[in-house]
Amino acid sequence: MRPLIAVVGHGKNAGPIHIKLAYEIGRSIAKKGGVLLCGGKAEGVMGAAAKGASEQGGIAVGILPESDKSKTSKFLTVPILTGMGFARNQILGFSCDAMIVVGGGVGTLTEVAYAYACKKPIIYLKPVNGLLKQFSGKYMDEKKAVKILEANGPEEAVEMAFKLANK
Amino acid sequence: MRPLIAVVGHGKNAGPIHIKLAYEIGRSIAKKGGVLLCGGKAEGVMGAAAKGASEQGGIAVGILPESDKSKTSKFLTVPILTGMGFARNQILGFSCDAMIVVGGGVGTLTEVAYAYACKKPIIYLKPVNGLLKQFSGKYMDEKKAVKILEANGPEEAVEMAFKLANK
Amino acid sequence: MRPLIAVVGHGKNAGPIHIKLAYEIGRSIAKKGGVLLCGGKAEGVMGAAAKGASEQGGIAVGILPESDKSKTSKFLTVPILTGMGFARNQILGFSCDAMIVVGGGVGTLTEVAYAYACKKPIIYLKPVNGLLKQFSGKYMDEKKAVKILEANGPEEAVEMAFKLANK
Amino acid sequence: MRPLIAVVGHGKNAGPIHIKLAYEIGRSIAKKGGVLLCGGKAEGVMGAAAKGASEQGGIAVGILPESDKSKTSKFLTVPILTGMGFARNQILGFSCDAMIVVGGGVGTLTEVAYAYACKKPIIYLKPVNGLLKQFSGKYMDEKKAVKILEANGPEEAVEMAFKLANK
Repeated sequence: MRPLIAVVGHGKNAGPIHIKLAYEIGRSIAKKGGVLLCGGKAEGVMGAAAKGASEQGGIAVGILPESDKSKTSKFLTVPILTGMGFARNQILGFSCDAMIVVGGGVGTLTEVAYAYACKKPIIYLKPVNGLLKQFSGKYMDEKKAVKILEANGPEEAVEMAFKLANK
Repeated sequence: MRPLIAVVGHGKNAGPIHIKLAYEIGRSIAKKGGVLLCGGKAEGVMGAAAKGASEQGGIAVGILPESDKSKTSKFLTVPILTGMGFARNQILGFSCDAMIVVGGGVGTLTEVAYAYACKKPIIYLKPVNGLLKQFSGKYMDEKKAVKILEANGPEEAVEMAFKLANK
Repeated sequence: MRPLIAVVGHGKNAGPIHIKLAYEIGRSIAKKGGVLLCGGKAEGVMGAAAKGASEQGGIAVGILPESDKSKTSKFLTVPILTGMGFARNQILGFSCDAMIVVGGGVGTLTEVAYAYACKKPIIYLKPVNGLLKQFSGKYMDEKKAVKILEANGPEEAVEMAFKLANK
Repeated sequence: MRPLIAVVGHGKNAGPIHIKLAYEIGRSIAKKGGVLLCGGKAEGVMGAAAKGASEQGGIAVGILPESDKSKTSKFLTVPILTGMGFARNQILGFSCDAMIVVGGGVGTLTEVAYAYACKKPIIYLKPVNGLLKQFSGKYMDEKKAVKILEANGPEEAVEMAFKLANK
């Protein structure tokens, strides 16, 4: 099966740097034959990653909080409408083979926490500051499920994700 | 966007006729450029539809009740692990552009009821008996959301689904 | 533990007869020391059952689709806001010790189907017509999980529910 | 309506200090006429808080990840079985009027993050170390939804929770 790489991070508060990095990550996942998994909205990191994957001819899957398409990115191959609000964050954690984090606040924190609880590899993009930065390079928990890994750029992050996803 | 066609019906109680019909439906959805959406397990109608779509080179997405891949069909392009049990049935209803029903019992009934509540087109495969047969050709509810349409075979069902999905 | 009796049925389409019956059922559950479990909205069968249980001094628990209290019955002791839409119907099925059905359409159908799949006793109030009437006195499925039992009035329904809940 | 106070924190890794504090908090919530809301399992902070509320004659409501009662605390008045795994953490956030945190790891982090996103008052029990301690007395996010408040003991935490819940 093709690896499912989740990309999460800043939503509507994303700056140009988050958008640029997420777009590159999306492109890179598609180029390597992976499937992009994201939160599915048009805004922020999710929208940019979907655009990148789509423009590279890849598959972009979005797991949306809403029950209708009003906020859905038009770059998705598969928009999954859960109608379950933030509870959809659990689905990203269970479904991905690895997760790449581009900044992010409290919402992103729950996505990462779910992936962590599922012992999925988590790669934090070091150049962008987010709420997660305090966990960067560390274990989130005394149970030491997985260390939050650090990448210096989009290419490195995607390479790490593919390597760890196939383990 | 490519239409998302959900295929639901008999699970582990599926007979050879359900398997054959679901496989043909999966193939036909892929041939026409649609994305197959199903319950994601290896067994029954879901597994057969995923096999059909996959062998035709299409995209097969499964929305699974489980949080791990132990019961997942190997023919899926995108296995979505919800960890939410039957509550995943709501996701199929919200996400599909049309739903095709191949037999089915109580579980299928909830999938159809969600799609009905979302006013999605529902096409019942007339030749196979299931719990839904009593609604075949009728409205499920006094509010008359959508009539459960009847198809005589897989080809006809998929054609109806594509036609109604694009409305 | 005190038995948890779910009461489901017509929502905003409820007529005076559904309201009257649901109110009596709520009162009767509280009088016997049970906990009422319902969908939590102010409208229809859920609202009337909560009012009955509350006015009798009992505990009324509502499992709501919404994430805020705008539609919540003021008679609830415990409003549980799921933010998960109709997916909350699964929670009623898993949590109740028995379920009483007062009319109802497609939404009620999914609540009953979940309870059925969980093999919980289901009691249909015979005097009121709803979508469920076709299953009244029958098994919903070839797997014959549980027969949908019939009661002639609120008192009888609650007596049956308590008897079966304690098994 | 009676205030719904959520108590979250260490699960099976709870030490005697967490158990003692959670039990006192549960008792205190019941004494003041509140309803205890917790994760519902027998273990850790949830089990101890339910025991405290129950032995004081109060109402203890548990929102469980499981679909059956095998791990349920026997001290609950109302066990709510979601069958949705960690996605139930969202329900605690949406439903509570205030949340008290007694230590806790990654799971607790998602419960607090949901409550934070819902702008619910959050009170951290300062004497116990947990993953949340880094947010103690601070905002979790640049959007500055709510500051994580600090309490020095169970009595103070419950007093703060009631005061803030009624706002």
